[in-house]
Amino acid sequence: MNGAENLLHTLVQSGVEVCFANPGTSEMQLVSAIGNSSEMRAILCLFEGVAAGAADGYGRMKDQPALTLLHLASGFANSMANQHNAMRAHAPVVNMVGDHASYHLQYDSPLTADVAAHARLSSAWVRVAESANDLALAGAQAVQAAMQGSGKIATFIAPANHAWDAATEAVPPLPRPAREQVTHEIINETLALLRNGKSTALILGGHALREESLLAAGRIVAACGVRLLCETFPARLQRGAGRVKVERLAYFSEQAVAQLQGLEQLILVGAKAPVAFFAYPGKPSWLAPDHCTIHTLADVDQDICPALRALAQALGADTAPVLTAEAPAVPAPSGALTPVAIGQTLCALMPGQAIVSDEAVTCGMALFPLTENARAHDWLILTGGAIGQGLPLALGAAIACPERKVIALQADGSALYTLQALWTMAREQTDVTVVILNNRSYAILNVELARVGVGQPNIKTLSMLSLSQPDINWVELSTGMGVPAMRASSAEEFYAQFAAAMNSKGPRLIEAMVVQQMPG
Amino acid sequence: MNGAENLLHTLVQSGVEVCFANPGTSEMQLVSAIGNSSEMRAILCLFEGVAAGAADGYGRMKDQPALTLLHLASGFANSMANQHNAMRAHAPVVNMVGDHASYHLQYDSPLTADVAAHARLSSAWVRVAESANDLALAGAQAVQAAMQGSGKIATFIAPANHAWDAATEAVPPLPRPAREQVTHEIINETLALLRNGKSTALILGGHALREESLLAAGRIVAACGVRLLCETFPARLQRGAGRVKVERLAYFSEQAVAQLQGLEQLILVGAKAPVAFFAYPGKPSWLAPDHCTIHTLADVDQDICPALRALAQALGADTAPVLTAEAPAVPAPSGALTPVAIGQTLCALMPGQAIVSDEAVTCGMALFPLTENARAHDWLILTGGAIGQGLPLALGAAIACPERKVIALQADGSALYTLQALWTMAREQTDVTVVILNNRSYAILNVELARVGVGQPNIKTLSMLSLSQPDINWVELSTGMGVPAMRASSAEEFYAQFAAAMNSKGPRLIEAMVVQQMPG
Repeated sequence: MNGAENLLHTLVQSGVEVCFANPGTSEMQLVSAIGNSSEMRAILCLFEGVAAGAADGYGRMKDQPALTLLHLASGFANSMANQHNAMRAHAPVVNMVGDHASYHLQYDSPLTADVAAHARLSSAWVRVAESANDLALAGAQAVQAAMQGSGKIATFIAPANHAWDAATEAVPPLPRPAREQVTHEIINETLALLRNGKSTALILGGHALREESLLAAGRIVAACGVRLLCETFPARLQRGAGRVKVERLAYFSEQAVAQLQGLEQLILVGAKAPVAFFAYPGKPSWLAPDHCTIHTLADVDQDICPALRALAQALGADTAPVLTAEAPAVPAPSGALTPVAIGQTLCALMPGQAIVSDEAVTCGMALFPLTENARAHDWLILTGGAIGQGLPLALGAAIACPERKVIALQADGSALYTLQALWTMAREQTDVTVVILNNRSYAILNVELARVGVGQPNIKTLSMLSLSQPDINWVELSTGMGVPAMRASSAEEFYAQFAAAMNSKGPRLIEAMVVQQMPG
Repeated sequence: MNGAENLLHTLVQSGVEVCFANPGTSEMQLVSAIGNSSEMRAILCLFEGVAAGAADGYGRMKDQPALTLLHLASGFANSMANQHNAMRAHAPVVNMVGDHASYHLQYDSPLTADVAAHARLSSAWVRVAESANDLALAGAQAVQAAMQGSGKIATFIAPANHAWDAATEAVPPLPRPAREQVTHEIINETLALLRNGKSTALILGGHALREESLLAAGRIVAACGVRLLCETFPARLQRGAGRVKVERLAYFSEQAVAQLQGLEQLILVGAKAPVAFFAYPGKPSWLAPDHCTIHTLADVDQDICPALRALAQALGADTAPVLTAEAPAVPAPSGALTPVAIGQTLCALMPGQAIVSDEAVTCGMALFPLTENARAHDWLILTGGAIGQGLPLALGAAIACPERKVIALQADGSALYTLQALWTMAREQTDVTVVILNNRSYAILNVELARVGVGQPNIKTLSMLSLSQPDINWVELSTGMGVPAMRASSAEEFYAQFAAAMNSKGPRLIEAMVVQQMPG
């Protein structure tokens, strides 16, 4: 048994079931060991950003890490934007990165670079395996490290010779770490805050946005009337009919400031204090009112649900939370294909337990409120802000939950960063419906151009924010990657195509030619 | 005048003419300043890897830096694989990377990360601008730093507030650094080596592979009979009819060892001592024979051509170099579309002064020798080994040299990493003919699988190296991105389509359905 085979045995024993792979020469023993393992599913991705984004989506839905397989420092670099998003989403991910044989590094051959230095930029835990026997231990430790708190990125580096040399010691899995409990003192302090009569909001993030935590938060609201807010870009929000509704903080800082106006205290539950996504001249970075105090019930890595339940219990056991009603049946939209028409269609047709991957950017701001009364679903957003997350995330979520319908709401500009995900969706026959919201521009940047105080832009400036000349044809890109696709140019066409997608299984893409109205 | 406008003025004065841009919110003032500059060409790229690879191609052809415009750490990360290639190619590149306003960093908003730490991984020079006035100075210094030696990657980071705040001090360009001269002592020592009667090869790299340096090297060969080798992946090799031929070191280490057998001394001229690209079990990493001595005439950053000329002069002024003959006319190939048929077509039809971007990987090994007698051309290779270079490099070379035909020889697997380059080729109407060598697999990895000593692979293992199921349709991908495309399935079809491409201007793509024979 070589080091790679020994490692695979340990990873499988540790509960890792899926590998999103983009290997190279230095990973051939790892590829072969995966190929020989009946318990590790191998999913080829054609770009490393797809592998990392898919592992993020898988981790958000399973609360278990998938494995990525990446090729040296440059392969890791290609994955880093989506590693950043996974890190900000607190998702568990284990990266397995090949490197040159340890004795080969001294020669500085062309593809040599410092893999660990790359990995450290987006990983909470990094280790280079030191021998064939050590490789499996590094893998076991990585799985353990990935399960710390809400979830971490753990990266182990496998020098090629440690994969091909003989390994003699089987390495058992390591215990999963327990999440830190919120102390009674903190719960009692929070209770006192809730009873002090001040204008208060809970700001929820991380696992506080899962159904059970939201039910407890809803009981707190019912008992004492605080407001329930959530971070702007939650990693995974369980919402829709039958769920407890939270108010999402706006992306544009002036709108968020207005939302928070009048609040005297904020209690953070798995979230950070609200700050602007970007700075703008003359606009605040800190969004809470001047004299508003900030308190923390639980950070994102703590065990949030029991803390919220204890708080709800202390406030009164008989307070039932208010649950979101299901949307009434309305006529199918007609006419121009506006974001509103798309939102109404989603609201009417999304099946229960759907998973939405939202990288719709400007359009997404409209689609989110329009779907609040849809059947119960999970909504996953671009948590870290590095575009190119949406399609890979949808892929990973579909692999994690093959029985659920996945819907990727995807702006055209950001879809182009990782469009290679379409091919893997086709290969794995994942049940993903991709909706490309094609407005032929980086629409958000046209908005931001005005917001940062640039004067009237000229044609050359606007051309740097436009995706036209030439227009991109998403139907051709999709079928070129093996995913059946159609274009919708009216509300009626979109409704019919989306209904057909919801009533069948397998990957497909709808290019929605959106008539965009500007937000803000 | 704000900091961004002041910076643009300095960059233009410093001789920078082109910006490959992929901006975000934090770069809006820079976008606007570029938009308002009549002397800075703005070229929008839909992925940062395209921008960096294009800047590399531009730098290799112009020996002047282009600018990239990138968005924060994640934007830089997306460009890093091609930054690595540019670094290994010793090409001049200036990266202009936006960051959050300096006062905003403390809030750790979602897209915050350490931009400088990312930049340092592939840049020789990195600096964060410290004020609106300092921004233009940072830009001027970056251009100077990029022109050190053969060329460096210089990255300056522009916090958003330094771009929008007022700047009061115009900053003039800085002088270009001179290349270090090779000393007389080293030239005399090298002369003694050439006269000591030992079996000798010059190994050329960097600017030693430009026509004038090669002519001097050819005179040395004519005078004293040494062998002329070049590194396996030269950044830019001037070759073809009327040029001095060099023997390229083989990629597979056992073949390179055979090439070097019997040599007693190697003299490095802008190249490094030959080492294996990857380690393989039981195969050597160091490729020179055991007792072969290694000497250096010039490193890649020194002024190579005068040193070679001085050496040639000392050996005998009357020795004319042997020049490559033009290929005789042969019948157009027919039948199966093999790499040989493609190579014969290229050799016959490539116009003089063509620029070839070679990321053909396995196929490229066959195409290179078949084109050695083609009309004089420049051949650019995947210098750093991080795949996804070929299409962006071709784009950048075409922007640098609009009067020359650019031919991208592109393996299908590596083309998928940065296929977004096609859209910019279409938008800028660059004169690039892309040949996708479609063998529907990572063919090189199938070869490497055997070479690293993995036993008979099973179907699951092979599926991780295959680009089929589903097959990718490059004609659709190309037309979806706005580049006209055709598929060639026979030698006759390929010849006709390639001839048509050579006889017209503008971007087009030929999907060559290659019947692959394995190298090795």
